[in-house]
Amino acid sequence: MDEELLDGTMVVRLGYRGADFAGFAEQPGQRTVAGELRRALETALRRSVELTCAGRTDAGVHALAQYVSLPATTEELALDGGRLLRSLVALTPDDISIRGLYQAPAGFSARFDAQMRHYRYRIAVGEARPVLAWDHAWWYRGNLDVAAMAEAAQVLVGEHDFKSFCKAVSAEGKPTSRYVESVVVREVEEAGEPLVAIDVAGNAFLHNMVRTMAGTLVEVGRGHREPGWISKVLAARDRKAAGPCAPAKGLVFVGVEYPQDALIPWQGV
Amino acid sequence: MDEELLDGTMVVRLGYRGADFAGFAEQPGQRTVAGELRRALETALRRSVELTCAGRTDAGVHALAQYVSLPATTEELALDGGRLLRSLVALTPDDISIRGLYQAPAGFSARFDAQMRHYRYRIAVGEARPVLAWDHAWWYRGNLDVAAMAEAAQVLVGEHDFKSFCKAVSAEGKPTSRYVESVVVREVEEAGEPLVAIDVAGNAFLHNMVRTMAGTLVEVGRGHREPGWISKVLAARDRKAAGPCAPAKGLVFVGVEYPQDALIPWQGV
Repeated sequence: MDEELLDGTMVVRLGYRGADFAGFAEQPGQRTVAGELRRALETALRRSVELTCAGRTDAGVHALAQYVSLPATTEELALDGGRLLRSLVALTPDDISIRGLYQAPAGFSARFDAQMRHYRYRIAVGEARPVLAWDHAWWYRGNLDVAAMAEAAQVLVGEHDFKSFCKAVSAEGKPTSRYVESVVVREVEEAGEPLVAIDVAGNAFLHNMVRTMAGTLVEVGRGHREPGWISKVLAARDRKAAGPCAPAKGLVFVGVEYPQDALIPWQGV
Repeated sequence: MDEELLDGTMVVRLGYRGADFAGFAEQPGQRTVAGELRRALETALRRSVELTCAGRTDAGVHALAQYVSLPATTEELALDGGRLLRSLVALTPDDISIRGLYQAPAGFSARFDAQMRHYRYRIAVGEARPVLAWDHAWWYRGNLDVAAMAEAAQVLVGEHDFKSFCKAVSAEGKPTSRYVESVVVREVEEAGEPLVAIDVAGNAFLHNMVRTMAGTLVEVGRGHREPGWISKVLAARDRKAAGPCAPAKGLVFVGVEYPQDALIPWQGV
């Protein structure tokens, strides 16, 4: 990276529908969120860019507020924000939504400066197919004991080794301790439809961690396991001890918290 | 209809995504909600059926709670509700959701016994594309003065001749007076996204009436017209006086009210 690119940091807040992406991170020959966004930024800024994101989401996972950072020059940071935002909207496809533009000091990282990440997993329960939530909820055709799931989830709160909840191949030889701030399981109504929502907040997450939490809590909800089973899953430090990884389409990356005043809204947006 | 089919009435509550249907009503050679539902019911009941619905929605319009009635025999009304519901779920495509089964006295009509119908029109406002609401909201890329829209909407409440809000060809030689119970315009958050919602309740609606109300209120919201203009539109009794018909994808038929105790939940559902 040229020295001149380190005057400050450009931060983009974006949403996307996961269905037609092979995930966030670029992969050769695949349609990815990072690939589409990089091309749009390179066209708008007329140079090559390297992106850092708050959380790499898997294929099929949606985002309402993903954050992406890139070093920027003083000249770029002086651009009109409204115009730049409209350019990015025009240069991105229908399933990406450019939701905000911010500036941060040089050295800011959307990944390493994130203090808290928020996810929501949605389940449509029962015989009736979801209607408006069809593409962002897992249709679970049985009954779920939501109170049992909510109770069981409390074991997951705090600093733990979440190796049991990490895709096995991704956990090998890597630190697997994470701090989970809260796991709230409750019935909600969204756009007129009843859903079960699992809201998870934590400092950082392992590969497939939220989806494996959801799949494991559903084992409790459907009565296949007692709420106390979750403690044993956690203690096992073995992916095979947990429940299945819940489908990607039910997961939405809903937000990230950065230190107060780290992000300055871009003028003109 | 055979005399023996008049023992009582079967009522189905269903939702659907409008995108891939040429509307509710059957049309030769087209994929319609009524066509799919009729085939499912004919397979489940092993006879031909004729359906009556609470409100015929146009191509692209969604429903969370459409109601359909059909005369049924005593034998059919004795069927296990849970089994019948699961059959209908299995026999309907992915974009239809069977949400409830009820019984009503002979002669009940989902259309003529409806006392109140409810619709919600959704608008995603501003530069950012809607993410999770992409297929059930109109993306309006300007700013809208929601307070002005809410004020203007009050003129539409009450018993009026809504000829200006009816598709011209559908209004010819037909009564065009309707009673609108309420029109509420407000900012809402659904599934984490900010939207403008227009909730309309009334006894019955003309062809394109809610969408033309939405398109006309947007003319006020974007500052193209004063709120008082709506009175003139109403008085003109001429479709050309109103604003454009808002896109179908933003409209959801959200519910119907029937006389208390008219619908008895089917045992076993």
